[in-house]
Amino acid sequence: MNEIRIEKSASLKPKPDASQLEFGKLFTDHMFLLDYSEELGWHDPRIVPYGPLTLDPASMILHYGQAVFEGLKAFRTSDNRILLFRPNKNAERLNVSNERLSIPEMDEAAFVEYVKALIAIDRDWVPSLEGTSLYIRPFIIATEPCLGVRAAKQYLFAIIMSPVGAYYKEGIHPVKINVENKYVRAVRGGTGFAKTAGNYASSIKAQEEAKHDGFSQVLWLDGKEHAYIEEVGSMNIFFKIGGEIVTPELNGSILAGVTRDSVIGLLKSWGYPVTERKISIEEIRRASEEGKLEEAFGTGTAAVISPVGQLHWEEHTMTINGGETGEIARRLYDTITGIQSGKLADSQGWNVVVE
Amino acid sequence: MNEIRIEKSASLKPKPDASQLEFGKLFTDHMFLLDYSEELGWHDPRIVPYGPLTLDPASMILHYGQAVFEGLKAFRTSDNRILLFRPNKNAERLNVSNERLSIPEMDEAAFVEYVKALIAIDRDWVPSLEGTSLYIRPFIIATEPCLGVRAAKQYLFAIIMSPVGAYYKEGIHPVKINVENKYVRAVRGGTGFAKTAGNYASSIKAQEEAKHDGFSQVLWLDGKEHAYIEEVGSMNIFFKIGGEIVTPELNGSILAGVTRDSVIGLLKSWGYPVTERKISIEEIRRASEEGKLEEAFGTGTAAVISPVGQLHWEEHTMTINGGETGEIARRLYDTITGIQSGKLADSQGWNVVVE
Repeated sequence: MNEIRIEKSASLKPKPDASQLEFGKLFTDHMFLLDYSEELGWHDPRIVPYGPLTLDPASMILHYGQAVFEGLKAFRTSDNRILLFRPNKNAERLNVSNERLSIPEMDEAAFVEYVKALIAIDRDWVPSLEGTSLYIRPFIIATEPCLGVRAAKQYLFAIIMSPVGAYYKEGIHPVKINVENKYVRAVRGGTGFAKTAGNYASSIKAQEEAKHDGFSQVLWLDGKEHAYIEEVGSMNIFFKIGGEIVTPELNGSILAGVTRDSVIGLLKSWGYPVTERKISIEEIRRASEEGKLEEAFGTGTAAVISPVGQLHWEEHTMTINGGETGEIARRLYDTITGIQSGKLADSQGWNVVVE
Repeated sequence: MNEIRIEKSASLKPKPDASQLEFGKLFTDHMFLLDYSEELGWHDPRIVPYGPLTLDPASMILHYGQAVFEGLKAFRTSDNRILLFRPNKNAERLNVSNERLSIPEMDEAAFVEYVKALIAIDRDWVPSLEGTSLYIRPFIIATEPCLGVRAAKQYLFAIIMSPVGAYYKEGIHPVKINVENKYVRAVRGGTGFAKTAGNYASSIKAQEEAKHDGFSQVLWLDGKEHAYIEEVGSMNIFFKIGGEIVTPELNGSILAGVTRDSVIGLLKSWGYPVTERKISIEEIRRASEEGKLEEAFGTGTAAVISPVGQLHWEEHTMTINGGETGEIARRLYDTITGIQSGKLADSQGWNVVVE
């Protein structure tokens, strides 16, 4: 790993009111950049003032979408330490995405060091208000100017950061979800398990239609049979059915969420086994009819836990736990946010301190 | 349509040797730009010197791949006219792609005018050597700086152009194709029918593996059953089986190629009906075994017609027409390239003259 070159911004932006933050709209004073070329590999790590990128209009990212990204958060504790939540998992997954998209592998330890170095420079941007955090967005784009369809020979790795407000301004609460039966997010053999730009572009239309119909997210079914549950919006999903906690198995079209992994780990440590398996929407409908659908919740970096109060699938409306947040969902939410913010003991060793 | 603002380049680049051109590496002196905002719609059409774009690192294209593009060609005739091949079809398809990706619709007549205006400025870049052309790349990218996953509110439409050499330097010749049985290009309900960046990113890995194994392209099967033929590389595909010409129907996961449409039109005008239907790879294998697989060829803007000499599927090797270019493929190639270059009469009214 080369030494990080640092060019500090001449003037710092005013810090925002932490109670008024919108997601991903405002960015910190600096950003991290790292180049890749065939000759030099990943090289020239540097922290520079946040500002526009200059891209040739033929840059391959703009035409063929060869790009991957990550998302993680840093938290300020009451004793003013800064904690990163499981950044090594993001480093690992970035390389899984890189491999699928034919992007060169990154050094995972270096990835974590780069994230820490950028936070250290902009540490005053980590907000302290309950529920707030600094959202960190590492991403890689193909920058080579060429219209041939193939893997690029030049890339840019960048990290930008944005202070974000509390996801639940009035406490955790359940949402209404529509089971998508027209659009498909991913299929086995495709890129569903990779965190690549194109997966998100292709999901926008379904989300828009669900919003228009009064739902907050879509529940994606598999692309092959339109029968099995995959993800909810851009989160993983868990159900509690007749006492058993289940979540779709990582089958090649589902993203391996860091929160998903944390939830499985916590539940196991509490003595609740989690079964990772195929779950059909018909199984969920039947469980609902029989009164056995006890909980449903999404898991992801943004919301941590997002309880599902109501599921709509074709002519069926399934209300879950009387439309209220379930006991497991609430305990998971309190525990994970408690660990992240340093209020609870980090018994799993998940936090990384930014010095 | 607003008037196009023109800022000419102060110095023009030297023109390349038309016999040495690589695809999509060298660009003309100017580019066309057009902005979109919610308040103004598509606005400020302008031709400016070719040069870098300045993008906020949070621009949505760089994270969520909300981008679509087109590809078409201009040709110089022996009497020095410049002909565009069916640009209205690209305008139509761009809007199909826009709709799927939640990008605002464009005026199709304006699209054609923009392409013509840019060619008119850089007309000296249209090469005249046999088989050469000017490749035109219109594209739209989401430029709004925001990390929320939703349709952007700001876009850039751009056109860049690149002189390209003859696809077949030594005459049209057949290629070896591998039938892909691990990776999937698209699935119904996804974005396969749209010309969006992410479709190409997800295809790179399979193409790399096929190249590594000595094939020039992959033949994609459907994502659901892995049984039906979809596309070859980034081309459509046609077969002649026992006298019948067939091509996969436009089923929601196949791109509606302009060359595909042109081929169907020509074949019909010659009295060869074309059946658009589901074609299984097993049907092709059986036809090959029975000696009925008479021709196979891909169709696309780059190669026009790309004859398939050999198909590999699992343990089966199918040699088609003795590995030689078939009669239909050659006639189609000669006719379409003849019309495009102005050597043959444009009986279909496909050419648009750039004044």
